[in-house]
Amino acid sequence: MPLLVGREYNLMKTVMVDLEERSYRIYIGRGILGNLGSYMKEFNYGNKTLLVSNPKIPGKYGLILKESLAQNGFEVITGEIGDGEAHKTLATAEILYDLAFTCGLDRRCPVIALGGGVTGDIAGFVAATYLRGVPFIQVPTTLLAQVDSSVGGKVAVNHPRGKNIIGAFYQPDLVLADTDTLATLPVREIRSGLAEVIKHGVIADYQFFEWLEENIEQLQNFDPEALAHAVAVSCRIKARVVEKDETEHGLRAILNFGHTVGHAVEALTGYLAFNHGEAVAIGMAVAARLSVNMGILPEKESTRIINLIRKAGLPVDLPEGLLPEGLLGCFQRDKKVSGGRLTFVLPERIGRVSVVRGIDKSKYVEFFNKEMQNII
Amino acid sequence: MPLLVGREYNLMKTVMVDLEERSYRIYIGRGILGNLGSYMKEFNYGNKTLLVSNPKIPGKYGLILKESLAQNGFEVITGEIGDGEAHKTLATAEILYDLAFTCGLDRRCPVIALGGGVTGDIAGFVAATYLRGVPFIQVPTTLLAQVDSSVGGKVAVNHPRGKNIIGAFYQPDLVLADTDTLATLPVREIRSGLAEVIKHGVIADYQFFEWLEENIEQLQNFDPEALAHAVAVSCRIKARVVEKDETEHGLRAILNFGHTVGHAVEALTGYLAFNHGEAVAIGMAVAARLSVNMGILPEKESTRIINLIRKAGLPVDLPEGLLPEGLLGCFQRDKKVSGGRLTFVLPERIGRVSVVRGIDKSKYVEFFNKEMQNII
Repeated sequence: MPLLVGREYNLMKTVMVDLEERSYRIYIGRGILGNLGSYMKEFNYGNKTLLVSNPKIPGKYGLILKESLAQNGFEVITGEIGDGEAHKTLATAEILYDLAFTCGLDRRCPVIALGGGVTGDIAGFVAATYLRGVPFIQVPTTLLAQVDSSVGGKVAVNHPRGKNIIGAFYQPDLVLADTDTLATLPVREIRSGLAEVIKHGVIADYQFFEWLEENIEQLQNFDPEALAHAVAVSCRIKARVVEKDETEHGLRAILNFGHTVGHAVEALTGYLAFNHGEAVAIGMAVAARLSVNMGILPEKESTRIINLIRKAGLPVDLPEGLLPEGLLGCFQRDKKVSGGRLTFVLPERIGRVSVVRGIDKSKYVEFFNKEMQNII
Repeated sequence: MPLLVGREYNLMKTVMVDLEERSYRIYIGRGILGNLGSYMKEFNYGNKTLLVSNPKIPGKYGLILKESLAQNGFEVITGEIGDGEAHKTLATAEILYDLAFTCGLDRRCPVIALGGGVTGDIAGFVAATYLRGVPFIQVPTTLLAQVDSSVGGKVAVNHPRGKNIIGAFYQPDLVLADTDTLATLPVREIRSGLAEVIKHGVIADYQFFEWLEENIEQLQNFDPEALAHAVAVSCRIKARVVEKDETEHGLRAILNFGHTVGHAVEALTGYLAFNHGEAVAIGMAVAARLSVNMGILPEKESTRIINLIRKAGLPVDLPEGLLPEGLLGCFQRDKKVSGGRLTFVLPERIGRVSVVRGIDKSKYVEFFNKEMQNII
């Protein structure tokens, strides 16, 4: 996977996601929010748009977008939704359907998501289902959304019984990632996004991993050019995986590196103690150690992975008090257990992972107990 | 468009819908309900299925399906939903998501719709969105569903503000139309389905229209072989249109012949006076007369169309008391008015329709007033 040439930082970067008639471009750069209206001109859209956002997004981003849209002849209807997973529900979707219908949005009018992963997921679900599908545009404003959730077409709402149970694969027409929007994020949010950035290096790109080892401080110091580079390479890596497996029947599973344990940690701590990136960071560290334990990954490489995660200000150990049975229950719900055997995405070396099936449950419990002893 | 050879009645018929990786087969025949389990074996399904049905469907159909599924190793979870458009809501969908989740349906487990259009629409919507899409199977048991709604991938639920506002294009893996299930329908339901059957003849197949002129009595007398033939040809005609325009960007509009006025008549009479087929019948007759009025369709052909509709026991006149403004309001909501001009699907001759744009509003009002005078 070729890396972007090192010093083209100041230019706007474009990543193409090649999915035949569902192909689209990701624009990445500094201060490009105001370009949205002109990018939209190449599509044959109706003149109304539904802009979905939430109160946590700084008002000026919305104003810049609205001005850009108005200058290009679009009427903007604003749909503000609550912040956080608790609002990612069918009930919120219904409010947006109602708004779209009342304001006369037709099948040629795009829905625009301005915000983080929750905004993108729910706006995308509404776009996928309103009038059997209207155009969709992602304007992610968090690092996590820019490097992960806005790319790949997964949209969803939660069901009282579980996250993302109701959803679709629905690709946007374009993604616009203005890295200047990252400057106002708390550092903990940047670090959460860095977990997915590191993941992309581990699963697919040794050179990028090396670059991250060099630049992990700059990224946490909000260095805008380093951030733009990290976003562009991450999008490119994810795009190449999604192109080969749009609806998650095979290869796309490698994007779940760190997520099996990560999801379990999130669930077992009530989605309170850790944010998504922190849970994935723990999951990646556990997977690296499990891979060493199974004789797949050299210990030296595991140490490098864990050191990079740590240098990104992210946790690498399971929280105290977890029981192996609790984790196993979560893996089961995550469909990672079959016939008493486990499936994990494990690194073979930095830049390459594989889906390892048939891991014996007793072997896992033994490994887990060792993990917990190391904490205490 | 080639017609099925006239006398292969006794055989099971198969219509292929060719949509690349979303292609599927429609099986049409007498007493084939019990084949479902074996047809499903060719797919790599999980061993659970969610069978969605409603209390109006004769219990024996469900029993036959369940036995066939059990014999082929499938565990059946039954989701019964209320009958009628009033139940085609997100709230009903949520009940089905809940059931699917509770019973542990995973991404390889199919949702099966057993019933008419409402059942197919809502079960299809749940299949399209549960876990971002699970396999979907249609087992239509009304003539309307067998010749129209089960083919083409349109799935939806209603929004309090309008019908089918929330939905998707989502193709089934297979459709099984057992024409013996039509024997228990009230004749009014058969006639409702015949409206769509006649529509297929008018829009695309002169020979089929002629066959209908010969066989319209037999169809209303539940002649099983005539019904099987009508279903097979209708599915084939609809399949050819859908293949060329899966997501309704152009050609698919011809399937709306009779539906612009039909939808308006349904809405203006509160969905009570006429069922869908009856409203479409009126819409087709009005469109035929409008086409004559505009010098497009020869009067003789219009008379043949109207006579066939009448012979099918269906209405051909607008109900008393409608106002042109009321209809215009409905056309507007149906996106059939732009800049004061109307769009209609009008027959050029039997077997061919075209989308006629730019019909002057005043010309339409004049025509409409003449229509109403003829009634009174």
